[in-house]
Amino acid sequence: MRINRKRLEESMEALGRIGATLKGGLHRVALTDDDRRGRDLLVRWMREAGLTVTVDQMGNIFGQRPGGDGRPPVLMGSHADSVPTGGKYDGQLGVLCALETIRSLNDRKIETRHPVAMAIFTNEEGARFQPAMIGSGVMAGKIPLEDAYNARDRDGLRLGDELERIGYLGPEPCLPRPLRAYLELHIEQGPILEEEHLPVGVVEGIVAIAWSRLTLTGVQDHAGPTPMRIRHDALVAAAEIIRGVREIPRKIGGDMVSTVGRLDVAPNIPNAIPGRVSMSIDLRAPDEHHITRGLGLVDRLVKEAARAEGVTYELEHYWRVPRTRFALEVVDAIEAAVRSLGCGHRRILSGAGHDAQYMAAICPTGMIFVPSRGGRSHCEEEFTPMDDIEHGANTLLLAASTLAGAP
Amino acid sequence: MRINRKRLEESMEALGRIGATLKGGLHRVALTDDDRRGRDLLVRWMREAGLTVTVDQMGNIFGQRPGGDGRPPVLMGSHADSVPTGGKYDGQLGVLCALETIRSLNDRKIETRHPVAMAIFTNEEGARFQPAMIGSGVMAGKIPLEDAYNARDRDGLRLGDELERIGYLGPEPCLPRPLRAYLELHIEQGPILEEEHLPVGVVEGIVAIAWSRLTLTGVQDHAGPTPMRIRHDALVAAAEIIRGVREIPRKIGGDMVSTVGRLDVAPNIPNAIPGRVSMSIDLRAPDEHHITRGLGLVDRLVKEAARAEGVTYELEHYWRVPRTRFALEVVDAIEAAVRSLGCGHRRILSGAGHDAQYMAAICPTGMIFVPSRGGRSHCEEEFTPMDDIEHGANTLLLAASTLAGAP
Repeated sequence: MRINRKRLEESMEALGRIGATLKGGLHRVALTDDDRRGRDLLVRWMREAGLTVTVDQMGNIFGQRPGGDGRPPVLMGSHADSVPTGGKYDGQLGVLCALETIRSLNDRKIETRHPVAMAIFTNEEGARFQPAMIGSGVMAGKIPLEDAYNARDRDGLRLGDELERIGYLGPEPCLPRPLRAYLELHIEQGPILEEEHLPVGVVEGIVAIAWSRLTLTGVQDHAGPTPMRIRHDALVAAAEIIRGVREIPRKIGGDMVSTVGRLDVAPNIPNAIPGRVSMSIDLRAPDEHHITRGLGLVDRLVKEAARAEGVTYELEHYWRVPRTRFALEVVDAIEAAVRSLGCGHRRILSGAGHDAQYMAAICPTGMIFVPSRGGRSHCEEEFTPMDDIEHGANTLLLAASTLAGAP
Repeated sequence: MRINRKRLEESMEALGRIGATLKGGLHRVALTDDDRRGRDLLVRWMREAGLTVTVDQMGNIFGQRPGGDGRPPVLMGSHADSVPTGGKYDGQLGVLCALETIRSLNDRKIETRHPVAMAIFTNEEGARFQPAMIGSGVMAGKIPLEDAYNARDRDGLRLGDELERIGYLGPEPCLPRPLRAYLELHIEQGPILEEEHLPVGVVEGIVAIAWSRLTLTGVQDHAGPTPMRIRHDALVAAAEIIRGVREIPRKIGGDMVSTVGRLDVAPNIPNAIPGRVSMSIDLRAPDEHHITRGLGLVDRLVKEAARAEGVTYELEHYWRVPRTRFALEVVDAIEAAVRSLGCGHRRILSGAGHDAQYMAAICPTGMIFVPSRGGRSHCEEEFTPMDDIEHGANTLLLAASTLAGAP
């Protein structure tokens, strides 16, 4: 049993047109009109594939294949939102491979012991509303529904209002439900599979992640007549912190990474000394203890930089996801599937967060990676060769079939 | 002859309500609806004071008092736009003291040999459209009219279109005209007058200013699975440059100042490595040669920081105003005026750019400073005591009367 490569490729092209950028990327940020159009198309395809579609209070979309009534389903899924000027593979590839798996089961009229279902989770990227993975986070009981609704984007718009506006504030409760397993196919977003010429990664788990936000408040003043000796420049303190955050992984060792990805200056004009800077700090490590030590270094770094420049600060470590280890049973099923296909693979750890991280708290969970050219993602240049995608999708099909008890 | 303090204070309050912020500041950015409302009120007052009001192609507003026909007028003026979340003194105080001077001459029906006139210049702050002082810059022939029209704000709106939208794209050519003198009262925006308890500064000139813009292009990628070893982070390079720019005045000495006031990150989300950063660099010094040396240091600094992080860059030194020395005749007239009032004063150099800088290329020019509390400006806390304002306004009245040949 194999997936239909041509059909999958056509669906990728059709969905990729909604929010396509001129440079071949994707700009389909959560709960925008383009996100709605993408969801609408997916829901149409899901209904055409015979799925019963439901939408929960977080706008997560589920489609369940008939059969295996009463037993917990095998759920496959990912997300359909992108980062701004992102790529056409991150998220939507996993959704479309889940759909293609179901279409392939339909082609052969295969009856499974457990139902097979697919999910599209809301605002995985965390680009517009923080934190990331908010749809699966609420479902796993890790984020209160009200907190998620009250998340605001840069323009002050509420997530709850935007869900309603695009017509995806559903009636179903957003709660853990009995599931046989959760499977997610995703691009690696790192360089390992490509460097080792392997089409498939059998993901063993996800690194621990911590997000912090920092606001520095200095003294806004005129850039001309204000002598250097009396300045308290929030951006100068921020620069010191950006450099310090970059050094944290080198100090701690292991495979830790650290990033300041977002930074906003006020009033942000050439001739005013910045009075306020807000910024994000992202730490990730396979070893939970490295995160704890990293956050300690951030605390000290911010305190010292603020003191040196005479600015005040608010630092909040507001989101932390522990190291996730996927279920042995699911990892083994994926490995068996890729082995039966006879294609190259290796076990791998994910450096990116995924909805699978929260789903692992609900049910036995696993992930399948396909390579990212140049290790690049969250950019328009994101690319995975179709041959690798085919191997990954077939791995998903076979692993899901096994776990669902296909004949 | 003295100005009417109560009337001046009432006008300051009335104009300050248009674009007032909750914290007592002013947010009336150039060519916004609030700027239009502020202009409309000023034009009404100017007409009520008997002035002939004209608007030129740059939206600069002129109001001329009858009398002294045929002779070049003494022009007083400043600007009515503010920086975002700025103060109620920067700009509009100079405009209102000019108006108050004219009203005081009217009160006493004084006939002058030269006409007395006032001006309100467009987009002095350069907060929305760069460069700053664009209205007087075009008038002085230092900035081509078409370049000014094509300046775009962050949303891509053209200055020319916005001028037309708010109804201030006037018919008069924006050209140098014969002027007896130009006088501008302004807040000091620095700490010197307050520190020395002097109500009036007799401004001898303005420091040299250079503005540069820099765009750094790294590799946008995912903040999770991208190992530190393969990163090219535009914001890390920017941080190095911010710190380096801060050090330039210490290296060069003198009263140089340097500021990175504006910085924009793309895609500016917590979980993407910044692919692009654009920023401003502002250098000022009393000594022209210090600017030249400073720009050389900027060149080297940017080159080294970009190389260290493996990012590319575009650096443009796009605006430079040389050190301005005001006309001895006008400086002396101002000093004589303040001396006749018997109040404390000193000669002073301006660290901020002003429309007077461009006007000095057209006609004999001088400026009067009043103190800024804590040296602060371009912020909501901007404040000047009314007693000092009264001394400054009387200095303007007497100096303008002398230069206009009042009896």
